Formats: sequence, structure tokens, C-alpha cells
Amino acid sequence: MRFAAFGEVMLRLSPPEYLLLDQTNELRMDYTGTGVNIMANLAQFGYETSLATVLPDNRLGQVAKSAIAKYGIRTDLLTFAHQHIGSYFAENGYGQRPTQVTYQNRHHSSFGVSDQTAYDFEQVAASNDLIHICGISLSLTDETRSAAHALAKKAAEAGKKVCFDFNFRPSLNTEPNKAAFMKKQYEQILPYCDIVFGSVRDLTDLLQMPLSGTEDELISVFMEMYQIDWFAGTKRTSANNQKQLQGFLYTRDEQAVSTSRELTILDRIGAGDAYAAGILAGYAESWSLTETVEFATMNAVLAHTIHGDVPLTTKEQVLAVLENPGIDLIR
Amino acid sequence: MRFAAFGEVMLRLSPPEYLLLDQTNELRMDYTGTGVNIMANLAQFGYETSLATVLPDNRLGQVAKSAIAKYGIRTDLLTFAHQHIGSYFAENGYGQRPTQVTYQNRHHSSFGVSDQTAYDFEQVAASNDLIHICGISLSLTDETRSAAHALAKKAAEAGKKVCFDFNFRPSLNTEPNKAAFMKKQYEQILPYCDIVFGSVRDLTDLLQMPLSGTEDELISVFMEMYQIDWFAGTKRTSANNQKQLQGFLYTRDEQAVSTSRELTILDRIGAGDAYAAGILAGYAESWSLTETVEFATMNAVLAHTIHGDVPLTTKEQVLAVLENPGIDLIR
Amino acid sequence: MRFAAFGEVMLRLSPPEYLLLDQTNELRMDYTGTGVNIMANLAQFGYETSLATVLPDNRLGQVAKSAIAKYGIRTDLLTFAHQHIGSYFAENGYGQRPTQVTYQNRHHSSFGVSDQTAYDFEQVAASNDLIHICGISLSLTDETRSAAHALAKKAAEAGKKVCFDFNFRPSLNTEPNKAAFMKKQYEQILPYCDIVFGSVRDLTDLLQMPLSGTEDELISVFMEMYQIDWFAGTKRTSANNQKQLQGFLYTRDEQAVSTSRELTILDRIGAGDAYAAGILAGYAESWSLTETVEFATMNAVLAHTIHGDVPLTTKEQVLAVLENPGIDLIR
Amino acid sequence: MRFAAFGEVMLRLSPPEYLLLDQTNELRMDYTGTGVNIMANLAQFGYETSLATVLPDNRLGQVAKSAIAKYGIRTDLLTFAHQHIGSYFAENGYGQRPTQVTYQNRHHSSFGVSDQTAYDFEQVAASNDLIHICGISLSLTDETRSAAHALAKKAAEAGKKVCFDFNFRPSLNTEPNKAAFMKKQYEQILPYCDIVFGSVRDLTDLLQMPLSGTEDELISVFMEMYQIDWFAGTKRTSANNQKQLQGFLYTRDEQAVSTSRELTILDRIGAGDAYAAGILAGYAESWSLTETVEFATMNAVLAHTIHGDVPLTTKEQVLAVLENPGIDLIR
Amino acid sequence: MRFAAFGEVMLRLSPPEYLLLDQTNELRMDYTGTGVNIMANLAQFGYETSLATVLPDNRLGQVAKSAIAKYGIRTDLLTFAHQHIGSYFAENGYGQRPTQVTYQNRHHSSFGVSDQTAYDFEQVAASNDLIHICGISLSLTDETRSAAHALAKKAAEAGKKVCFDFNFRPSLNTEPNKAAFMKKQYEQILPYCDIVFGSVRDLTDLLQMPLSGTEDELISVFMEMYQIDWFAGTKRTSANNQKQLQGFLYTRDEQAVSTSRELTILDRIGAGDAYAAGILAGYAESWSLTETVEFATMNAVLAHTIHGDVPLTTKEQVLAVLENPGIDLIR
Amino acid sequence: MRFAAFGEVMLRLSPPEYLLLDQTNELRMDYTGTGVNIMANLAQFGYETSLATVLPDNRLGQVAKSAIAKYGIRTDLLTFAHQHIGSYFAENGYGQRPTQVTYQNRHHSSFGVSDQTAYDFEQVAASNDLIHICGISLSLTDETRSAAHALAKKAAEAGKKVCFDFNFRPSLNTEPNKAAFMKKQYEQILPYCDIVFGSVRDLTDLLQMPLSGTEDELISVFMEMYQIDWFAGTKRTSANNQKQLQGFLYTRDEQAVSTSRELTILDRIGAGDAYAAGILAGYAESWSLTETVEFATMNAVLAHTIHGDVPLTTKEQVLAVLENPGIDLIR
Repeated sequence: MRFAAFGEVMLRLSPPEYLLLDQTNELRMDYTGTGVNIMANLAQFGYETSLATVLPDNRLGQVAKSAIAKYGIRTDLLTFAHQHIGSYFAENGYGQRPTQVTYQNRHHSSFGVSDQTAYDFEQVAASNDLIHICGISLSLTDETRSAAHALAKKAAEAGKKVCFDFNFRPSLNTEPNKAAFMKKQYEQILPYCDIVFGSVRDLTDLLQMPLSGTEDELISVFMEMYQIDWFAGTKRTSANNQKQLQGFLYTRDEQAVSTSRELTILDRIGAGDAYAAGILAGYAESWSLTETVEFATMNAVLAHTIHGDVPLTTKEQVLAVLENPGIDLIR
Repeated sequence: MRFAAFGEVMLRLSPPEYLLLDQTNELRMDYTGTGVNIMANLAQFGYETSLATVLPDNRLGQVAKSAIAKYGIRTDLLTFAHQHIGSYFAENGYGQRPTQVTYQNRHHSSFGVSDQTAYDFEQVAASNDLIHICGISLSLTDETRSAAHALAKKAAEAGKKVCFDFNFRPSLNTEPNKAAFMKKQYEQILPYCDIVFGSVRDLTDLLQMPLSGTEDELISVFMEMYQIDWFAGTKRTSANNQKQLQGFLYTRDEQAVSTSRELTILDRIGAGDAYAAGILAGYAESWSLTETVEFATMNAVLAHTIHGDVPLTTKEQVLAVLENPGIDLIR
Repeated sequence: MRFAAFGEVMLRLSPPEYLLLDQTNELRMDYTGTGVNIMANLAQFGYETSLATVLPDNRLGQVAKSAIAKYGIRTDLLTFAHQHIGSYFAENGYGQRPTQVTYQNRHHSSFGVSDQTAYDFEQVAASNDLIHICGISLSLTDETRSAAHALAKKAAEAGKKVCFDFNFRPSLNTEPNKAAFMKKQYEQILPYCDIVFGSVRDLTDLLQMPLSGTEDELISVFMEMYQIDWFAGTKRTSANNQKQLQGFLYTRDEQAVSTSRELTILDRIGAGDAYAAGILAGYAESWSLTETVEFATMNAVLAHTIHGDVPLTTKEQVLAVLENPGIDLIR
Repeated sequence: MRFAAFGEVMLRLSPPEYLLLDQTNELRMDYTGTGVNIMANLAQFGYETSLATVLPDNRLGQVAKSAIAKYGIRTDLLTFAHQHIGSYFAENGYGQRPTQVTYQNRHHSSFGVSDQTAYDFEQVAASNDLIHICGISLSLTDETRSAAHALAKKAAEAGKKVCFDFNFRPSLNTEPNKAAFMKKQYEQILPYCDIVFGSVRDLTDLLQMPLSGTEDELISVFMEMYQIDWFAGTKRTSANNQKQLQGFLYTRDEQAVSTSRELTILDRIGAGDAYAAGILAGYAESWSLTETVEFATMNAVLAHTIHGDVPLTTKEQVLAVLENPGIDLIR
Repeated sequence: MRFAAFGEVMLRLSPPEYLLLDQTNELRMDYTGTGVNIMANLAQFGYETSLATVLPDNRLGQVAKSAIAKYGIRTDLLTFAHQHIGSYFAENGYGQRPTQVTYQNRHHSSFGVSDQTAYDFEQVAASNDLIHICGISLSLTDETRSAAHALAKKAAEAGKKVCFDFNFRPSLNTEPNKAAFMKKQYEQILPYCDIVFGSVRDLTDLLQMPLSGTEDELISVFMEMYQIDWFAGTKRTSANNQKQLQGFLYTRDEQAVSTSRELTILDRIGAGDAYAAGILAGYAESWSLTETVEFATMNAVLAHTIHGDVPLTTKEQVLAVLENPGIDLIR
Repeated sequence: MRFAAFGEVMLRLSPPEYLLLDQTNELRMDYTGTGVNIMANLAQFGYETSLATVLPDNRLGQVAKSAIAKYGIRTDLLTFAHQHIGSYFAENGYGQRPTQVTYQNRHHSSFGVSDQTAYDFEQVAASNDLIHICGISLSLTDETRSAAHALAKKAAEAGKKVCFDFNFRPSLNTEPNKAAFMKKQYEQILPYCDIVFGSVRDLTDLLQMPLSGTEDELISVFMEMYQIDWFAGTKRTSANNQKQLQGFLYTRDEQAVSTSRELTILDRIGAGDAYAAGILAGYAESWSLTETVEFATMNAVLAHTIHGDVPLTTKEQVLAVLENPGIDLIR
């Protein structure tokens, strides 16, 4: 199965060793983004993956391309235009101290100012089997919104699977009346989608669907309404200073939840993308729902133990830990 | 409220990543000390703070001044004289391995060899509302002892609040007959003090006060004896490899204890100073005792999750974690 | 003499050890800008300095403030608004390989979107003796342009010295018809200026003044036209892989050129600001033109031997090297 | 008591801060190996120790020698020949992610291609009281196997104590029929041994001894068969994401097990060698079995909290933590 | 033009900042080798490039693949087998102190133990226009020798250009009678070659060709003998502590030498490969001999100013420095 | 020949990459001192060397011992007492910017407060052939002065060679009347000395010997007066931003000067000690004066190209560069 993603590439800048930005002059630079994370993880799993995005036409664009190639992602769908890349500073949390993210330069990035005319979406659809579209594109700018809608339509018309991630960020949607506007955007793209990542809260708060019955029923209504094949997501719980993660996965007929897994957190960011990559691997391999959700959840657990957003796990590694949970040394 | 502290600035040298001094040639350099820590934290909280100390009249003094300014502390009360700064090497512990501190050059530092003639204590008292004096000054040298007594008297006479921290270090007081001598020193300074940080053990072991009734009664006797307004401190407990911290705060009428908080320790040193800064913030803001002690305790908990001695927390951050204890990502 | 500067604070991100951005994940972070550089250097020289700028109202703004305070610059004129800071990536050159700079996010930075309403220019003028305005403000955005003009007028009206730096960057002025527009901007601000940093090329190319006679005559015409007190700059030459620097300084009556100094380059950026700071020190101290230009040139030479844009030289150090050129160890 | 070890010196290369090899260009280099680890720890405990090995006759051999000397191990038994050293890459695990070790170049290392003719085993036996032989030598190459047998015989004949560590690594023994061959090797060396480190699984799987009765009985049979004085080892358990370690120690008459200790793991590798060093310290000091096993187990617990394979604990430190388990700061 | 190279991928391990291996525990890891270097540089120049090699079938092979992809080299000709990679330690020289290289594990590497059966040389020849073969393969092992001969033959038969680099390393050929044997190997491969990199010394010492006339005549004889199209190389000179580099390039009709360029050396290794890549770019573009040799020489000069073996120059950068030799800042 | 040195061990703390102390929190830690430097270099040359000093009886003393052992120096003459070590901060210069050294804590260090009763000078003299005494001991404290005199006398009486280094530091001798006092100290120790390192300025300024004739005559008078066998030193010159070094060596009969060598300076400190070690190697090997002075001068030249004070050169390396001055790569 050949995968492509449409989404922003960002520069992540983090101080080393849990230091705050005031405590050091040293930053670690990584190239990241929902599309990068999922495509990189799927490439690690052995699939052919591509990324459709616009990178700046300068040194930072070249360096971003190198980073993407290093992850094993094909670079044939990259476009180079304009001069800016979005970035974020991540001050890694520790214990009770939360990770603090500060965004910079997203709206005016090369990606942010590019609409569908910057891409060859025909080729994106033609050369891939499943297209992943990150919901952030709907919030970011008029241009990215327009591009996302265009790609979803094009891919669906070409008979390809469309995978969509709600990924709703309140911090990108603070203007008044933005809620109603965003609801419309999501409603417009969902009919083209086959696989959706989200939460019950996305359905109730963003889509304003009424929670009259159980959560299961709500999800069922949602999936029927948009003819969604798979709906998946995770739940995070915290008790006694110990965090846990549990994955869920619905088809229109069945549902599965994973074992609830304890989290040991080295890096909090990117775990959701690891879960998505795990679900897509199960989809590609036609694993059972239970196998899929267990794999995806453990993949997300392991992503918490890896620095950076990009989940550099392999299938073998995830399966090894699933089979032998206490293992702490492989040689 | 304008705060000033009188105390030593030390150079802290720590190997990175929990390494021992034999394992690396690399050290992290920080400027620290009880006064620095508390004033820096209060500056982070938005107060005007100053530090009265003597720094070496050479490159290290200049660099220390830069570091102090970076923390947001005003540098107008700094004096530059002599050639030496005290330092300590901290090999950060991990799990069951304790942090190991090795002191160097404290007695002959520019601070250590300076008595009250090196300072303009009139100005210190005049331009601030609350003066913090660290008890280590009473142990260090004849000169620092003399300066501490002089400042306490001057501040009290000027009608300013005096805040005193027992901070008794057995390792600085190993000579024979030092116990009786130190008892006298503490008894001499306490009548000038309004806010005191300490423990029951300070009262029984250092001041030799008899524990005939409950601890509450002892503290009450102590506070009446010296007309102390606020007496505050923390208790650390350890069970099943899990450490906990609880703060207490007494006025002569009331008392409050905080929720007992689990500790996740990145850096053990400086947490007591974070607690003190939290209490002083509550004092400045006239928060209730309970609000104050909860804020101060959580501030100390967060200080354990930050590298170095200096608690770089903000009021907003402490309150955010108090309100939403499981939060692990802010963006 | 109290100095203030108006200008942008930028984040400089550079790989360590002459590495390219493709070769490392590690970046060094510094806060810089013409105003920061000159005010920091003058603070090192012992003067009181301030910076009037707008920093983002988030973690990056707080960290920038800490960095500015660390340089010894007063932070009382800083404003916090909006969410963005400009940045640049500097890949340090070595030997024949030039340093490569890539800018990001300047036009939409908190500074770039702020006009004079964001500042209290009354206070800037009232509390300082000399105001430095960087010419980049004229190129950057309509808002910074407007603010620069307003400040120059206000300072001149208050009877304060205005120092202006041409600092013309072709890369910020590539639009058609920008040349004529920029000429007008410079012509509008110069009447308010007392001290100007620039080059003959700025006069001929930017101001379109005809070079009919000698360069000296042209400069004389320019200085009379705008009633400039001091006009200063440097010339860089390169022969046999060896670079040299020479400073010049004109009053309307006299002129001086410095010894031509060989350059050993550790970091190429910021040397012009060091030269400016040296000239301003001579101005403040009423040194002779020759003393001033020699000091300023050696200060610029030393700035090439210091990492980063900010020239952390002291007066004593510059004078020591002037007096003892071969000295390589001080202990 | 003077100790010597016979064994391989390896270069350990690990990325910093739990990074994967794909995530960084930076590696930490350490010189390690069972013999190095145990001799270094015993040197830290105050004993005279030596290492008999062959190092490459090039820069890496010189650097390895420096590293060995730094650990306090005497370098008089080192031989320099050939050009290669074995190495391994350790990607440190975190939480549920296991540490991943990748070996390189062991069979063709200077140690691997050297048999007994490369050493002066007479001198090794003559100048030491106890000789430690690592079982890996029996698996590695014909040359190391031959050398190990020769040394065991020579030491036993000289009346010196021989200490042997099963240290069986399936990954070094994957050829068909290797099992029977290895069984013979172990049976051949055991008659010379006085102290043996191993597990019940070594007896049942490697030596193919039948487990007809209890484990204690099996160990008793084994110790009688080869006239072993001390047999010692550890058991690792894992429950609820919490790992524990327990040590055991048998003489032919008695047995002792340690308190079960929780593990906080900074670096997983080398803990077994720390346990061995602790047991040998008890042997040298004639501590009781219980004292010995408690000391050795806590030494292994602390080794998990120290970076690298080499347990840089001191006797004082181990005893301090045994006496005061919650201690987290020494100053 | 599509390029492929056949050659070894090595791990380069270098201490930072000119430190010796005894002075630090920190190493920088890079993946390198003549083929990697030239293909990476040509990829930077915009060509499609591939590498035919065998990498270990373990973590190090995966990481090497990532590194190769990051350079922009296609990974479709990589094979994964066996468990070892060759490596070298480079202690970077400074001033009069030479760079010191120590090799490890080359003969038993996955590449070293693989002959032509490990590759699909049909595909290598079919999918590329020019195949580069490094002469080190002739020295390394019987297997690499055999593979090199097979590939040269296959490529020539397919009508593709064969480019060969003498790259003779005495340290890999120290056995007695090796000289005559190696002469035969080189004589056997040269008839298949179109472009050859070497020196006069290679012709006289290795091929034992008599230098009866001028060097030009000797080269002419050599090129006629083997029907070589292009013969190119460099000459290094050193005078007064200043090193210089000059390139030469012969066709059977013409010859060109470059300007002699001063060298500023940050990293000595890989400059020869940069020269080769420059020549191949000129070949692909049909530049004049003079243009080609000037470009290639400046490319080699710049390669000396870049860390590591891999010349990360771009065409634009080389041309910019050729046109503006004194340039030290681009923004 | 067995060498021992008497002298202080200091902690050197230097920022990385030519950074100033204000620019980084990172320091490199090294253990150094004239005695350490010379003994380490002689150990690298293959001699048995020892160091007689007092180290603090705490973690820093243990770590210093490890560092000394790593250099290959025997640790049998080390004493552990008191709690302090002297240190210095070195901000490495670059180009025209001189290296800046700031000392800390020398007078109260464990070495500084220890007189001859802390050592077993009998054993020092008995177990070595040549004893090196650094002149700094004469300036430091009454205790070190007394110890130096005692050792010189003891070694001379035991018939061992005494080597003395003037090493006069004005910064350690700023008190009034110190000049006359220091003159007496040097006059008192010189009669015991056989080999002396110094300069003509030491003779004229410190010993107040009149320079009536040539420098050669003055040196001759000095050597006769104290029956010195060898007198050696270096001259540093600087012209056109290019520094040079030349060594000289006198016996009472002969004299030799080395080739004047250009300096490329990576680290300025410790080069004098490298020269001394080179002279002592020539003395031990009975090389000719010319061979000795050329070797020593090149050793000093190479020491300038190595980080830190300790010259980690080998005999082979020095000879290789002497024979092949332009060599820049060894593999």
C-alpha cells in the first residue's frame, strides 16, 4: 500500500535535557508535522510513503528535504516556493511540569500561503493508495483550507482512500465566529473521508452533534452520516501521578479497545501520530481490529519513550514489546 | 512589594546527564545561592528584587553579575571586591543514588571575607520592603556573621520586614563547641525577624528548646518568644521508593498544611528556596494561609522538575498545575 | 551619557563548530540585532543603555528579555505584544567558504507589525542623551518606518542627539520602484540626525548623490546638506586570502582614518556594530578623532574574534590590545 | 587481596540522552568489558587490580590503556598486538523501550585472535590472589577459548583462586551443534574454579543437568560436582512496570538471599558485573554471606543508576545507601 | 546524467573541536566512503545518483541507509547482508599537527566479504549512465576485487561510461609480493575505464611505467594504452606553513590546469572526492576543460572548509566563490 | 630514567569553542599544572613518571587522581588531605584576542597549605632519578616554599638530578618588598639545581644580575655561579600577526638554538611545559644539544595545536613532523 500525506512541515526547536529556554543557548532542531510523523513511521514499517507540501525555496527548505529523505519518505511530491517555514519551540516537561510549546511563523510559512495551485494533486492521487489529510490545514489559512478540500475531493474521485485527522487546535481558532465557520469546514471534508481519527469531544464540541445516547451510539451516528469506514482515537487518563493510554477503533459494525497501557514519558509530542500510523498499518495489513488497536496503542506508548515527534519504531520492535512486556535489553 | 536578599553567590558546577565527575570533562556552570534563588523566583513572579552581596572584582564577578541580571534581579546592591567566589560541584543523583555536593573556597570568597563595611545597608533597608537573610551567613565566617547581624538590626530599625532562613548546615559547623556558639548567634538575630523558615528540629537541636508538648505547642512558644509573624517549612517523606513533600505555615493564631505532593526529581537542590519564594509571594499578596501553603508547596514540587537551584517558575505556571494536576502539554 | 536604541531583536540560530545546517541537529541560540549589539557593547563599556523595541508576548519574549538584561541593557523600554519574533539562521563560514544567512519571519514579527503607538517615545527621548536608530527599520514594514520617523523627530525636538545607521540591505528591498521610495525615506530622516554611520556607496547608490569630485568632497557635501556632526564607517579589503579593516571618521572640519588592521575571523557578523559602539564611546568621552577611530577599529577587529553578533569587549581589553598588539595570554 | 581479570576490552558507543542512532551524530565512547567492569569496581573499593588482555597496537589501544588506568586498574598485564578492537553500539532504552545493543568486530579483535602465547600467564598467576575469567572467552574464538583454559589451569596449579562467570550469550553461539561443544568447554573449565557466577538456567540449559528436585538441590549437586566454594547470581522480576532485583549466594553449606530491591534504571548494562564485584569484595573481606549478598545487590542497584557499564560505586556509598535508603542529597 | 558508484560505506568517528581521542568521550559519527562522497556531492549538484554497496543487516545498516538517503542519494541499489561495517577514527589535525586516521574492521565488513553475487550489476549498469568504481576495492579483499572487475566489465559491455579512481593506499597493501599482484589488478580493470583519477606517481610506482620523457608524455602514453578519455588529479604543495592545491585534467588531445588555490583546512579528508565530483559535473555538462578544472579545484578548496568527508557544496556556491573570491558573508 | 615532579595540581575550566564565560553555561574540566604537564608528556614519551603533591581528601581529589592516572603518571606519591583544590578559568583567545586566565583558590588549596611534613620526600628522592620542582612553589605560600626547599636539598643530597623552572608569576607576587624576598628564595634553591628553565629576564629582573656584557656571558656567569649543567628556554616573537617560537639550550661549554618555528595556536597554555619535557627527553636520551633543542621546540609547537595544558604528543609524532614538516594526514 502506498501512502501520501498532505500537511505542514515544521521546524521543532527544543532545549536539551529538560532545560528551559532561559537556561541554555543550545537547541535541538528537528523537522516534523503530522504528515511527516505518520509517513516516517509508515516508512519505518516498510511502506512506500510520500509527502505533499510546500517548503521554502532556500537553505531551510533544502535542509527540510534532507531530513524528510532521511526518514525514508519519498521527496517527489515536495514543492519549493516562498521563503518561510513554520516553527515551534518545545520546552520538554518533566514530572508535574508540562511541556510548553510556542509556535512561530505558521500563517506566513511557504505551506501556509500556498493553495492547491502549488501542488499537482492529480499526481498525488494517481501515485498513492491512501491519502492522509491533517485537520490543521482547515484551521491554518484560507489557502491551506482550500488546498485540503481540493485534495480530498480529487482523491475520493480517483477512488483512493482518504484518511482524515480532526486534530482541532483551539489556539489556532480563537477568533469570534470561528466555531461555526470551522464546523462547516469539517462538515464539507468529511463526506470524502474513509478513515477518521478523532474523539467524542470532536463530535460534540466541533461538529455540535448532540450526545443523546451513549458515546458508542454517537460514533455510530457520525460514521453512518459520513459513511466512514474506520473511526479511531485514544483516551488518556491520569491517576496518582501515573498516566495511562487506551486506544479505540470502530468500524460501522464492530469496535475494539486496547489494553490500557501505562505511560513513561520521555517526549509527549507525536504520540497521537504514532497511534494513527499503527492503525494505518493494521488497515494496510488487514489485521483484526483487536490486533490493530493493540499494535497502534503500543506504538503510541513507545513513541512516548522516543525523543522528538517522529515515531522511529519498527514493526518488529512493537511486536517484540507486545510479546515480552518486561524486556529491557536486546543484544 | 520590593524584596532584597543578603547572601552568598556561588558557582555551581554539575556534570551533564547524571554523569559522575570521573565520567566527563564537561560541566554546566550556574550562579546560585539561597538569596539568588529566592530573588530570582520572586522576580519571575513579577516583583522587584535586589541582591546585596560581594562578588569578586574580576571576570568571575562580571559573569556572576550578568547571570544575576538575567534572572531579572536588580544589580544595584552588588559590590565588587577581592578575587574569589565560592563554588560547589553537584553530581546529580538518580533513583537510589543520592546527589553528591562538594564545596570549594567558601570561607575565602569575596563574600566570606567581607563584613558590613563592604555594604551600604542603609540603602538596602531604605529601598526595600522585605529583607531576606540566609542563616548560612551565621555559620560561614566572622565577617559574614557580623554583617548578617548588622543588616537584621538596621532593617528592623528601619521598620522593614526581616525574613530569616535557619538553613543550618552541620558540615559548616563541625568544630568543637560550635553548637553553643551557633545557638547564641541564632538567638541574637531572631528578635529582629518577622518571617522565619525552619523546622522543629531547628528549634530542638539548634536552639535547644525542649519538646515537652506537641510540635504545634513548641512552635507556638518559639513564635511568641521572638514575636515571629510567620513560621514556615516543609516535611519530606519517603515510602516505597516514592518521595513526598508537604508544606506547613504558622501564624501566631493559625496554621495550615498543604496537600502532600508526590515528587518527581530532576534536580534536588533549591526546592527549599522555591518553597520560601512561594510563601513570600503569598505574604506579599495577602493570600490566605491555605492558598499560600498550597502555592508554595506546588512551587517547590515544580522546582524539583527544573535543572539547577534557581526555580524558574511563574505564578501562572504554578496556578495552572494546581488547577489541572494531570496536564502534560500546553500549546 | 545615557544611550537608547530603537530596533529589532532577532533570534540568531547557528550550528556549532562551522557545521552546516544539514550536518547537525544542534543550534546555538542568541538574541541579537543592531540595537542590541551596540547597546550591549556600550553597557560593557560602562554606560547606561536601554532598548526600545516590541517583543512577543510569550515565552520567546520573556527569554529575549532575559538575554537583554544579561547584556547589561536596561529593560524598562521593552514592550510585549503579538506572538512573533524574527529570526535568522547563520551557517558560519570558514576560510574561502562564506557565512550564509537565512532570514525568517521578519515582516510579521512583533517588532515588524508595531508602529509608534506601541512605544512611549516621549519617555525614550526624555530619559536618554543619545538615541540610535537603525536604518533597517526604514526598509522593514510601513509600521517600523513610521515609528522610526516619529522617534527621530521626537528625539530631535527634545534636543537629544540622534544617531543613524544606513544599514541598507538590498535583500529587504527587492520590489520594483523600491529604490526611489527608499531614497525618500532616508532623505526624510537625515535632517534629524547628528551622527551617521554609512559608506560612500550609500551616498551614491541609495541617496543618488553624484560623485563629481573626491570621496571626501562628497562626504562633505552630504554632511553640510543634513548638518551631520559625525560621519563614520569602515572599509574592508581582501588580498592574498588575508582580509583587512580600516575605519574612517569625519566631522564637518576634520577627518581621521585608522591603522589598517588584519582580520582573523571567528564570526563575521556584528563587527560593524562594534565599530559603531567604539565611535559612540569616543563621542561620549570626547576623545580625539584619531583616538576614537583607532579604538573603534580595534573594537571591530576584536568583535571578529568573538562568537555571535554581540561584541562583548571591554574598554580595558581594547586598549590593552592597542598598546600591546602581540599579547596572547593575560593571567 | 590482589585481583586480576582475563577478558575482552570493548569500545562502547552510545548516543546521548536516550536518542536513537538515527537521531544524532553524537556518540559517547567508553571502554568496557566484564573484566574491566569488575576490576574497575574493585579498584574503587580499594583493591589492587589488573587486567590481562590484548589491545590493538595503535591509537585505539593507547586510548584504551588510558581509560583502564583512569579506572585505577594496573596496566602491567596489558599486551599490544594486531590492529582491531571489538565494539558495541548501545541505544539506551527508556520506559517500555528496551536498550538495543549491536556488536561489531569481536571475532577479529586483537583479543579475539590471541591465544595463550600472547600472554605471560605465569606472571598473571604469580602476582595475583584471585583470577577472574569471563565465560564469553569460551564462546568467542578458538584462540580465546584456548587462552581461557590455559589460564584457569595455570592459576589453579599456582594455588590461586579462580573465579568464573558463565556469561553465556546465545547470540555468540548460534551455529548448529554449538550447544554440545559449549557444554564440553564449560565442563572442562569448571574443575579449576572456586567462585562461580551463574543461574539455575545455566545449569539446566547449558550444562544439561536435570532439575529433578528443588533448585537448591540442583545447585548443591553442581557445587559438589566441581567442588565450587561460592555460587552466586541474581534474579530479575518485573511487575506493574516496576522491576526488582534480588541476589543469592551459596556456599556448599549455607545460602543467603538479599532483600528484593526496586530498580530505577538509568543504564541497564553492567549491573551483573557490579553484583560480581560486590560478592568478591565480601569474599576478600570475609563478610558474612548475608552482608555480602546485601552489599552486592545494593551495588548492582546503584550500578543501574550510573551511566555506562563500569560501576563507579565506592564501598562508603553502597553502605550509606544501605543504612539510609531514602537519602537523596549528601553535602 | 545518472550516476552510480560502487564502493564501501564506512563509519567515521571523530572527536569534536580538534580534540584527541584521549581528551574526550564524545565522538561525531558520519557515514562516508569515496562512493558516498562523490554521489552525495553530485546529488547536491542536482544529479540523480545511486550507491551499490552491501550494508550490515542490523541497526547500523539501517542508520547508514538513512544517512545515505539524507545526502539525496537513491537507496535502490543497497543490499543488506552480514553484520559488520568498516569504520575509521579521525583525530583532526590543527596547524602543524597532522590528522591521524585509525581504521577498524574493513576486511570483515559486509562490503568486504561480498563479491559480485551480492549485487544486481545488470540493474546497476542498466539504470545509470556513468559508474564510478573506487580503486580501494581492488586492494581490500578477494571478494571486493572480484566484484569490481565484474562491474567494470558489465558496465563497459552495456555501453556505459566507467570512471575509476586509483586511490591506492599503501597501508592496505603491505604484504610481500603485493605490488606485482596489485599492478596486475589495475592493468586488468583499466581497459574498461573512460575517466580515471590518479597521479603520475600512480603510473610510475603502481603501474611501473617508465618516466622517460616529460610527465605529459607519460600521461599521454598511459591514456593511449588504455584508451582513457579523461585523466584528472590534483597536486598539493606546501610552503611557509601555507598549503596550496592545483587541479589538472587531460583528454587525449588537450590539457588544462587550474589556478593554484590557497587552502584553509577545517577538515582534510574527502577533498579528493570533491575534486572528482567537480570533474564529473563538468563532464556531464560538457563544460570546457578549463571551466571544469577550475570548478573542480574550487570545489575541492571548499571541501577543505567543511567538516567531514562529504562535500556538501552546491554548484551555485562554487560558482559564487569563483566569481567573488573575497566574499565572506551572504545574506 | 625515572622522573618525578613536585607541584600543584589545578582544575582548569574553559568554555568550549573560543566562547567567553558570559556566552555559555558549558565548561570543559581538565586537571593540570606544570608538574602534571611535564610528567604526562614524559609518560607519553615512554618514561616512568610520578607526581608528588597533595590533593583534597574528597571527590575532587579522587577525580584528580583518576585524571593523573589517565595521563600514565604513577599515583604512588600522591597525598590526600584537606578539602580544596586550586582552579583557573581560561577563556581561550582567538586571533588578536588574548587568552584570559582567572585564578581561584590557590593559596588555600590542599597543596597550598601543605609543607614538607605532608610528603615522604625520602621516597621521592629514592625512587626517582630526576626531580622537577616548579618555581611557582616558591611564590605560593610559606608552606609550599618550605617544602620546595626541603625537597631540593633532599634530592641533591641523595645524588639525584634536580630540575628547576623559574616560572615567575608577577601576579602571585604583588605585595611590597616581595621582590627582595623572592630573590632570596631563588638564590637559596639554585645551588641544588642541575637543570634550569628560565630566561635572561629572570636573571636580570628577578635575580638582579647585571647585564654588563652579552646575554651569553650573563648566562655563563649564572651557570658557573650555581654550577648549573643545562639552562634552557624559549623566545616568542610576533610580526605581522604571525607568531614564532625559538628554543635555546646552554651547557657550561656549549649552546644551541633551534630553527625558528611558526606557531598556529589552538591553545596557548602549557607550551612552555612541552618545551621542558622535550629538553628532559633529550637529557634522558643523551641526544646532542641540537637534536634536543629541535625536538623540544617542535614539541612546543605541537603543544600549541592541542587543547588543554597537557602536551599529549609522542616521540614518534614529534619526529615525524620534524622530518616531514608539511604532512597533514597520516593513515
